[in-house]
Formats: sequence, structure tokens, C-alpha cells
Amino acid sequence: MPKIDIQALPVKTGSGYPAPLDREMEGRSQVRLGDPAGLTQFGVNLVRLEPGAKSSLRHWHETQDEFLVVTEGTLTLRDDHGDTPLHAGDCAAFPAGDRNGHHIVNLSETPGSFVVVGTRTETETAWYSDHDMKVAMDATGLTFTRRDGSDIEPAS
Amino acid sequence: MPKIDIQALPVKTGSGYPAPLDREMEGRSQVRLGDPAGLTQFGVNLVRLEPGAKSSLRHWHETQDEFLVVTEGTLTLRDDHGDTPLHAGDCAAFPAGDRNGHHIVNLSETPGSFVVVGTRTETETAWYSDHDMKVAMDATGLTFTRRDGSDIEPAS
Repeated sequence: MPKIDIQALPVKTGSGYPAPLDREMEGRSQVRLGDPAGLTQFGVNLVRLEPGAKSSLRHWHETQDEFLVVTEGTLTLRDDHGDTPLHAGDCAAFPAGDRNGHHIVNLSETPGSFVVVGTRTETETAWYSDHDMKVAMDATGLTFTRRDGSDIEPAS
Repeated sequence: MPKIDIQALPVKTGSGYPAPLDREMEGRSQVRLGDPAGLTQFGVNLVRLEPGAKSSLRHWHETQDEFLVVTEGTLTLRDDHGDTPLHAGDCAAFPAGDRNGHHIVNLSETPGSFVVVGTRTETETAWYSDHDMKVAMDATGLTFTRRDGSDIEPAS
């Protein structure tokens, strides 16, 4: 059945960011749509943001194109150019290698949701605009380091 | 600016299908979203269907994953399993190589829209479920033939 039964899919909360940055992701939940439907060439997630929540820390991808469409509520695109409101049906695109760090924040008083698509690549590096941090992704998972590759000290 | 100014983008109507099948696509219009935004790894189109219109002839792709999310109205997914209604926010996925021919039709009395994502590949073949036809796609464009590769006779 090609229609995706979203209500039947697991909702993921929490964050893989090193402490204390992980706490910045409270109020974000995600449902993987593409994987359970058998898609392998790009990833698709439904992201829901409670009021005050953000989609991620502001970042950009080296090699993966990214696209999103808002499906519920009023959200805000925050990037190097400032804040841009996004209503249901609005779309945004982030070409691979464009160093304009971006994320989606919910500045409204009601929940908002968007569907985001990202290319699948075997390895990837993403850079964070507001923190001395980058992340390397491969089959083993995510490795967060400082921008120079050195370890991030554990939160004391 | 990552937000896509949909209103400023050209609206494409018509069809590349050989006559008289092209006339079946009346009431469908499309806006390319990904290309003008600089995306190269997957294509993104906004498809609008007037009442009675269809997204395409029913088909499946050999090598390209496909995903869609409804953004406006009530549409119907029509595939080998029958008809499934899709409301705003509903999603559907069509993994590459799954021979379940599908399209979206608008059986309602108001316009409906969806955003569709498809992987970019250098070549591709799609097969039509309800016609003796396939299409080969490459850098030179689309070539429609019968399923056995022979020419489709021009409409007399």
C-alpha cells in the first residue's frame, strides 16, 4: 500500500547531540516516513515542533540536497539572512554545499509540522553555524567533533 | 533565499504523451520547485489537479524512488489495489522497481495539490499499466514506445 499510515509509525524524540546541546531539542518529534515505505535513495521525515521548539541546531550539509514543505501550522525558517515565516504549503530548499546554515523554529503558540527530504549518501559531513561543531555521518552512525576535528569535552 | 517563491515560478501545462493520450492530462498543471532552487540530486514538482484531472497515466519507475505529500484538497491514489483517498498532509511512497502502477486523480469538486519528489538518474524507464506503452528518459528527453520497443503509430 503506497499510502503511508503515519499514525502507525514510531515517533522518535530526543537528540544525538552531545550534552548539554541535546536539551535544546526538547519539543521536537520525528516520524521516519521513507524507510518504512521502502525508499532507499532519499530519506523522508515528518518533523513536529511544539511551540518554542527547533528542528535542529543551525547547520548546512556538504553533499546532500535538502527540501522541506510545511504541512501544519506556522513555522519560521532561520538562516544567515534572518527569519522567514513559513505557512502550510510553503517550501524551502537547501542545495548541498551552500554554507547558509539553517533550521526551522516554531515561534507560534500552536504546534507545526513539516516533511523534509534529504539525499542518501554513504558518508556526509554537516557543519553547525552557531557552535564550534561538525558531525561526520557514515554506516557506523554520527560522530560529533569540534570544527578542527578535536574531541568535544564532556559537559561537566 | 531558501524559501521558494512559488508564485514567481512558471506554471507548466500540457503533456508530452503521444496523441491522443496527451488530452487525458487536461486540468493538470505543474511548477518545478527543486531545479530553480538549485537542487540537483532529486526533482521536486508541485502538481495541481482541477476536478476530474489526473497526475499522469498510471505508471511505475524502474530505478527512481518517488514520494508525495498532499498540500491542498482531497485527492485519490489509484493503483493496483484500487482507490485510496488522500487528504492534506497524507503521504505516499513508490519504491523504485515496485510494479504497482499508480497515479493521483482528483475525484472531488475542488482543486487539489501535492508535492512530489523523485530521484534524479541519468537514464530511466517507466512502464504504463493501462496502455501498451513505456517511456525511456535520458539527456535527450523522453521516448515513448510500445512495451516491445516498437513505434507507437501516430493518431490518425
